[in-house]
Amino acid sequence: MPNFDQISIVGVGLLGGSIALAARQRQLAERVVGIGRNQVKMDALVDRGMLDYATVDLAEGVGSASLVIACTPVETVAATVGQVFEHAPAGCLVTDVGSTKDAIVASVAKNHPKSAKRFVGSHPLAGDHRSGADYARANLLDDRCVVVTPVGATDNTATEQVSQFWSSLGARVVSLTPAEHDAAIAITSHLPHAVASALAAITPASVLPLTASGWCDTTRVAAADPQLWRQIFLSNREQVLAAVEHFDQHWAKFRAALEAGSDDQLEALLTEGKQNRDAVAN
Amino acid sequence: MPNFDQISIVGVGLLGGSIALAARQRQLAERVVGIGRNQVKMDALVDRGMLDYATVDLAEGVGSASLVIACTPVETVAATVGQVFEHAPAGCLVTDVGSTKDAIVASVAKNHPKSAKRFVGSHPLAGDHRSGADYARANLLDDRCVVVTPVGATDNTATEQVSQFWSSLGARVVSLTPAEHDAAIAITSHLPHAVASALAAITPASVLPLTASGWCDTTRVAAADPQLWRQIFLSNREQVLAAVEHFDQHWAKFRAALEAGSDDQLEALLTEGKQNRDAVAN
Repeated sequence: MPNFDQISIVGVGLLGGSIALAARQRQLAERVVGIGRNQVKMDALVDRGMLDYATVDLAEGVGSASLVIACTPVETVAATVGQVFEHAPAGCLVTDVGSTKDAIVASVAKNHPKSAKRFVGSHPLAGDHRSGADYARANLLDDRCVVVTPVGATDNTATEQVSQFWSSLGARVVSLTPAEHDAAIAITSHLPHAVASALAAITPASVLPLTASGWCDTTRVAAADPQLWRQIFLSNREQVLAAVEHFDQHWAKFRAALEAGSDDQLEALLTEGKQNRDAVAN
Repeated sequence: MPNFDQISIVGVGLLGGSIALAARQRQLAERVVGIGRNQVKMDALVDRGMLDYATVDLAEGVGSASLVIACTPVETVAATVGQVFEHAPAGCLVTDVGSTKDAIVASVAKNHPKSAKRFVGSHPLAGDHRSGADYARANLLDDRCVVVTPVGATDNTATEQVSQFWSSLGARVVSLTPAEHDAAIAITSHLPHAVASALAAITPASVLPLTASGWCDTTRVAAADPQLWRQIFLSNREQVLAAVEHFDQHWAKFRAALEAGSDDQLEALLTEGKQNRDAVAN
């Protein structure tokens, strides 16, 4: 029996589309509704079997929802959640998939103090350097981690139900405070993204034909959408700057070891990196 | 008809093993001989069908060779080539697979002025963060780039035959001077490796469970052998330091844009990275 009468997804891109596909495949809702900006494109997603119904009218799309997932870009998530509160039924749960949490959760709490208890911030640690519903797939969240970030004001039942929803999609759920999430993700995602982008940017066109798997792996995420990532960096600015500082300190040690031509120091630094990398699969 | 009577491979690890498998599969030689350090392990490679014959005696292993490929770690390549000149027939071609070229080519020219004309420096841009013959595969060089670095003293026929050999394995061959090679590879391989290692090293164990595909891709090469990479960095020290300087200049711009909270600057920097990354497949 489906857990929800209607799941509505605002912003049907890579993540929203993948959630829709998985929710339909796993029969987690009677209806999966998508809200987008272009009716023709949205209708194509219905034809593709990703959605039961699609609309560009947010009020209509969330009017009968039991769970709404805001999958809009980080900068607009809080505003989207506000609109959802305006038009969704009183008991409707609301969550999101934003890559940063503190700014979003704080904004919702501040601007919608009465409804905020029904909002549970979420961040599925799954993605792709490619964006858009074309790349959506039902297994995107399989065995991936989803961080939920309830705060004091969050209703416990809402947290449980949203966590259960992510589990039902095949994800592992981890609960952190918004600040803990942002500090961790600054190191595990935002900093690597910035470094990958810098590496790609400084590679002269003349040597691009000499790149191999090392360069390709290390710079892969640099292909992601600059607009989306500019928003992510700015919405987690302090934590990313702290991660950059942390990186710079280690980087200075590497540079010094190389300048000194020190076998021992270089090998020790490379061994530190290998130990952490070996601790993670894939 | 095989191109060579005997190909001898000194050091049968990931690259040496892959070359052996491909040479046998493509019937490029009557015999493929491996020279290693542990006879029991070498015999297992013969049993596996990777080699026709295996020995731990370099003099024996190269005594009847028509082409020798030195696949030992960067620091020892030049010495290995010297030993090969000592024991191989007078007409035998010699090449290597070292990740840096200037130090190796210069050392061979200086220490073996008479034989150096038969040595063509090579660097197959193919590898893996895992090392050892266990990971060898016949298609490792398929459609990959191999840089050859002949110098003034190099015999033209030797260059042609070594280039032809790499082409026969399915690789694209590019010819550069040793210095051009080292400057290019410092940017496309050595710098990314250093950055990946630093990123992995500074990730606290507590947040490793929160890593996802971005971190995994960006840090993948950090799992490689620290000893091998320490040698690579030190044998290309000047060029890697130049690449580090280049990176640091761009990195300072990113940091400044983030500190300033500048949408435009951040997006412009991320767009530069995306444009270069999009120019390379995979």
